[in-house]
Amino acid sequence: MKRPLILVTNDDSIVSPGIRTLISVMKEIGDVVVVAPDSPQSAMGHAITINNTLHLDKINLDPEIEHEYSCSGTPVDCVKMAVHEILKRKPDLCVSGINHGSNSSINVIYSGTMSAAVEAGIEGIPAIGFSHLDYSWETDFSPVKRHVKKIALEVLKNGLPEGVVLNVNFPKSEKGEIKGIKVCRQAKAMWIEEFDKRTNPQGKEYYWLTGEFVNQDKGQDTDEHALENGFVSIVPVQFDLTAHHAIQTINNWEL
Amino acid sequence: MKRPLILVTNDDSIVSPGIRTLISVMKEIGDVVVVAPDSPQSAMGHAITINNTLHLDKINLDPEIEHEYSCSGTPVDCVKMAVHEILKRKPDLCVSGINHGSNSSINVIYSGTMSAAVEAGIEGIPAIGFSHLDYSWETDFSPVKRHVKKIALEVLKNGLPEGVVLNVNFPKSEKGEIKGIKVCRQAKAMWIEEFDKRTNPQGKEYYWLTGEFVNQDKGQDTDEHALENGFVSIVPVQFDLTAHHAIQTINNWEL
Repeated sequence: MKRPLILVTNDDSIVSPGIRTLISVMKEIGDVVVVAPDSPQSAMGHAITINNTLHLDKINLDPEIEHEYSCSGTPVDCVKMAVHEILKRKPDLCVSGINHGSNSSINVIYSGTMSAAVEAGIEGIPAIGFSHLDYSWETDFSPVKRHVKKIALEVLKNGLPEGVVLNVNFPKSEKGEIKGIKVCRQAKAMWIEEFDKRTNPQGKEYYWLTGEFVNQDKGQDTDEHALENGFVSIVPVQFDLTAHHAIQTINNWEL
Repeated sequence: MKRPLILVTNDDSIVSPGIRTLISVMKEIGDVVVVAPDSPQSAMGHAITINNTLHLDKINLDPEIEHEYSCSGTPVDCVKMAVHEILKRKPDLCVSGINHGSNSSINVIYSGTMSAAVEAGIEGIPAIGFSHLDYSWETDFSPVKRHVKKIALEVLKNGLPEGVVLNVNFPKSEKGEIKGIKVCRQAKAMWIEEFDKRTNPQGKEYYWLTGEFVNQDKGQDTDEHALENGFVSIVPVQFDLTAHHAIQTINNWEL
């Protein structure tokens, strides 16, 4: 079998330990192309750069990789540039991450890591976003590497249902112990914001966004439940956002 | 009945004709609070500001409105600040737009306008994003005003199913003629990117993102179909991204 072509990206920037780990695993499986942001792009959601210019720099952090680029844009820009400007073809797989921090539950919506995977999915490329609940750059990724490899190989072997990408999160655990893998639904959780109001040296007020994650979803089939119990969570994610069940309800309105 | 409290935001900035139109309609229905970006934030998706400070300025573009603020953040930041810092309570309705340009089909994913509505939905606030296919700032919004009002009143009267917000798009039409309103699903369409490569005065290459919108979805129940035929499209949008139908498939893998 021909070695698959694998596009690697992320949102924590091309120098983050998470993406370097992901690259090291993907090199065991296929030919790797890296196109990742030149600076942190966390919480960028599905933003794209339309009112500004984009820059692409060929770099060589890993001498074993021929095509490695840093991009001034968002994670979604990186995927678009990789497919349409650098490769001029679809890779066999796109992996994004490993994110430093959770993208489980509602975090999928805010996540640059997952938006890169979704963008690849829109382009018809099998795609996976990987995230680790431990957001420290000192995280020991060695216990998760074999799971990353296994999931990527299964996606290459089976493909993914049309319009679906995977959101994979790794639990935080004392000794890096992982109990297994669970396929889950997205928990109904949210952030309750608090703004930290401060005064700058010129006397003008400004704010920092802070918040508390609140999960009131008690279901045992959720990603949060799996992660709390030491399992890897896989949520199949779709980008057809239509709430099909609501169409009939709204058709009954007086419009 | 008490007048409803209505939060108005957008992504084209607080001075855009689209939001001024939306404000003028909402004033007929309820008490209006405006919190909108101080500069254009198109295509920001669900980005939030976590690595930078946020600024909020009380302004007074409309003397009839007591609470009007411009915010340095993204559309999603605006909703969070409005609810948790300014109002300290949930408004009865959040409306976003009227966007200058389409947010139909896959554009819902990239849209700052729709992300603001989705953020309100996550917070449990009935929410609607309004967009006009004509992206000109000279667009004549007068033909769409009665539809904006009707849809907002129906949402206030009926509420929305849990976890659902509305994506409303208005067609571009010769004489502003609108044939009616259709409740639709999101068309399976996408952008095919082309990067416009240029050289800056210092000899360094840079890119502009450009692209062509391609709709291969021939369904007559899609938003694109409704809009092409002169109808207003309403797509109920959900933020539980779980592809429930794919869970069993992936459970059959060797994980």
